[in-house]
Amino acid sequence: MIKADIGLIGLGVMGQNLALNIARNGYAVSVFNKTEEKTREFIDEKVKEEKIYPFYTLKDFVESLKKPRKIILIIKAGTPVDDVINELLSYLEKGDLIVDSGNSYFMDTSRRLKVLKEKNILFLGMGISGGEYGALYGPSLMPGGTKEAYELIKDVLLKVAAKTEDGPCCTYVGNDSAGHFVKMVHNGIEYAIMQLIAEVYDFMRKILNMTNEEIGDVFERWNQEELDSYLMEISYKIMRYKDKETGGFLLDYILDKAEQKGTGKWTAQTSLDLGVPTPTLNLAVEARVISHYKEERKTLSKLYSKEKNTISVNKEEMIEHLKKTLLFGVFMSFSQGLWLIYEASKQYNYGVDLSEILRIWKGGCIIRAKILDFLRDIIRENEEYANLLHSDKSIEFIKDKLNSVYQVLEIGRNYRIPLMIINSAVDYYFALTEENLPANLIQAQRDFFGAHTYERVDKEGIFHTEWEK
Amino acid sequence: MIKADIGLIGLGVMGQNLALNIARNGYAVSVFNKTEEKTREFIDEKVKEEKIYPFYTLKDFVESLKKPRKIILIIKAGTPVDDVINELLSYLEKGDLIVDSGNSYFMDTSRRLKVLKEKNILFLGMGISGGEYGALYGPSLMPGGTKEAYELIKDVLLKVAAKTEDGPCCTYVGNDSAGHFVKMVHNGIEYAIMQLIAEVYDFMRKILNMTNEEIGDVFERWNQEELDSYLMEISYKIMRYKDKETGGFLLDYILDKAEQKGTGKWTAQTSLDLGVPTPTLNLAVEARVISHYKEERKTLSKLYSKEKNTISVNKEEMIEHLKKTLLFGVFMSFSQGLWLIYEASKQYNYGVDLSEILRIWKGGCIIRAKILDFLRDIIRENEEYANLLHSDKSIEFIKDKLNSVYQVLEIGRNYRIPLMIINSAVDYYFALTEENLPANLIQAQRDFFGAHTYERVDKEGIFHTEWEK
Repeated sequence: MIKADIGLIGLGVMGQNLALNIARNGYAVSVFNKTEEKTREFIDEKVKEEKIYPFYTLKDFVESLKKPRKIILIIKAGTPVDDVINELLSYLEKGDLIVDSGNSYFMDTSRRLKVLKEKNILFLGMGISGGEYGALYGPSLMPGGTKEAYELIKDVLLKVAAKTEDGPCCTYVGNDSAGHFVKMVHNGIEYAIMQLIAEVYDFMRKILNMTNEEIGDVFERWNQEELDSYLMEISYKIMRYKDKETGGFLLDYILDKAEQKGTGKWTAQTSLDLGVPTPTLNLAVEARVISHYKEERKTLSKLYSKEKNTISVNKEEMIEHLKKTLLFGVFMSFSQGLWLIYEASKQYNYGVDLSEILRIWKGGCIIRAKILDFLRDIIRENEEYANLLHSDKSIEFIKDKLNSVYQVLEIGRNYRIPLMIINSAVDYYFALTEENLPANLIQAQRDFFGAHTYERVDKEGIFHTEWEK
Repeated sequence: MIKADIGLIGLGVMGQNLALNIARNGYAVSVFNKTEEKTREFIDEKVKEEKIYPFYTLKDFVESLKKPRKIILIIKAGTPVDDVINELLSYLEKGDLIVDSGNSYFMDTSRRLKVLKEKNILFLGMGISGGEYGALYGPSLMPGGTKEAYELIKDVLLKVAAKTEDGPCCTYVGNDSAGHFVKMVHNGIEYAIMQLIAEVYDFMRKILNMTNEEIGDVFERWNQEELDSYLMEISYKIMRYKDKETGGFLLDYILDKAEQKGTGKWTAQTSLDLGVPTPTLNLAVEARVISHYKEERKTLSKLYSKEKNTISVNKEEMIEHLKKTLLFGVFMSFSQGLWLIYEASKQYNYGVDLSEILRIWKGGCIIRAKILDFLRDIIRENEEYANLLHSDKSIEFIKDKLNSVYQVLEIGRNYRIPLMIINSAVDYYFALTEENLPANLIQAQRDFFGAHTYERVDKEGIFHTEWEK
């Protein structure tokens, strides 16, 4: 009996598409799913000539694989991953490889790596981005773990990944949980860019009184320029999409309660643990949280009638300002996200190459964008430019945007619309480029009430003052 | 041999002062510290006629206590607490009580409660605020756990706590880890108020060119009005404090790198887990994080020379605007913090009475302030006003402040100084009082790339669209 090259567990849409993608690249794939039915449906409805073999027990599934076995999990993060790994352990042998490609929390991945290492099973924690389409035609792949494990499955991953002029969107991200960490931050940046676009859309409809079609046209134009990106592209398509039922724009019928699945939240929480400033990524999550209280907002909106200052603005100029504001916000979101990866890489010895990360985000993934080339140029000047602000290129880029950002925020404030994360991006920039912050007062207060001590500007050491007798 | 009423473990300054406080209230206190020396020093140098008895083994210490024994731990949070509890278990009997009064993480407190319940040992997780001074003369006490455990030590706690016209600053906070949760949020609010004062100070020195003495005078005046509070009081004292060595103002010699110990960070992280918006508390932590990168800021400040718009302002008017801005910020910080406690109380069945929390924060603790009476009036109208925005009183209060806040932020932006958390307070207010947020676009994007589904405004249900064929 001929053995399969790759095993894949988990036949949700993403799993099905990834299996098809692997098979179409010339590999024989064994598949398994907890519910048999899903496997049968997949085989009956989606698989044509591809070498995809269904199995209905884990034992048969494992035995169908060439040694060393390579098994990709694409299942719900959390305990299901532990459960499957535990079951697999009964059948696997030394040197076999498990690749967890769900959105696992990076700390879980570190833990699993340790446990599996003791059992001589190779393990990769791999982030995948690109949604259903990406899984089928080429996602961005972010595998992390041991180099040895990566080498075992590298050829398959490179073939399956999205391709750009800079190569396939897959690289060995780094040691330990580097892959899932980088994917987490990818999603944190994704949250921020989505919220930035949402704030710009809100400005356009509420202040510039633009129709969905007009906004869609502007977004499409932007998508042919510097803002060329997947999220811009789907945004203009969304703007134009008509609701079959009502004939109106579907967007206008969608409830403004943004949901979330955890990775954006983890990014914010982890940045707090690692002590890296990511205010814009954090507030992107906060904005979703606030949106969630729809009934509360409805009630309060009736209690607080806002007196707007309706300032007359030149629409075309304002659209240009909005474009620059969006670019500024995107830049600051990447600044924060990359800095977080940089610090995590130091802290956890991931050994991440930031320019490689930007390269593999160029295709397949949700945050793919033209601006990545520019950011990559900055990082390649000097890897230590982790927050992107040090390069002459950045200085020029930011200077060109600031006036527009100020205009947008001032007018937005006058119209009383929340531009929460754009504000945070400017304040991040101000604070980070400010030699003297008022944190000396905070240190004095802490020392006053809690004897927490402070440092001085004029000499080394740790000091405490008896502020009051 | 006469047995002591209370046992206290941990003779740091806080522990020493609390022991003295308890003894001066007429109780006999046995004390123990891991390092003997500290105990001897304390007895020799601080204890006079107080009935405070030193012990040098845990066994003797425990045996010296009346049954059921009541032991207060005031030691470093984390594993030290587990270690001491484990050791104590060898000597304790059914019905004895341990009170952990460190800044323990509330999840640890829940875990310990479970473990100790199985062993029939009573346990309270108690927040203490008030610093060294408070511990000695009356702190704010936030005990949580079973009511039975509280009843056992209630008399002592009520005597030891700070007193106000509304009674002693101690109450049974609620079930389980309610005490440490409420203390955590107390500190989250404390971080925010400290950062608000810092931003106002920054505005005064950098935009209004005020000297430390002038700022101190304004802060002292404010401290006699609506802003009357402990943090305002120590701030004006700090403003005037002269450095013995240089003869200049000490504040000017303190390095602007704000440190932190965890509780503010936990508040931000926990609010994300519970889905309660706390952008202002969150950014207060971020502001400390950014301040920490002093060298980075120094370098970047040289690369980014900011072109300020120097707008001429009326200094006295601006000071009035700053006062109202601070009041607005403080209000929004409490709004977020109390909402977080409210949701946690629902989620974890704490059974917290928010108005009681505001009452026990009125004395002893770091965030004690005149405004608490006002906030308490709002909450007492209706406990469901968790975020404080629903009352007519709030509407009037906020309306009176808004114009000032707008002025401060606009001028601050023109002078390019970061007013990060004041901005977040306004955006929180805008977003929470806005019926239609642009989160519909985010839901559309999520459904487009990940089939995450959405709700509609015109009918019930969960929907998915094939946005593109």
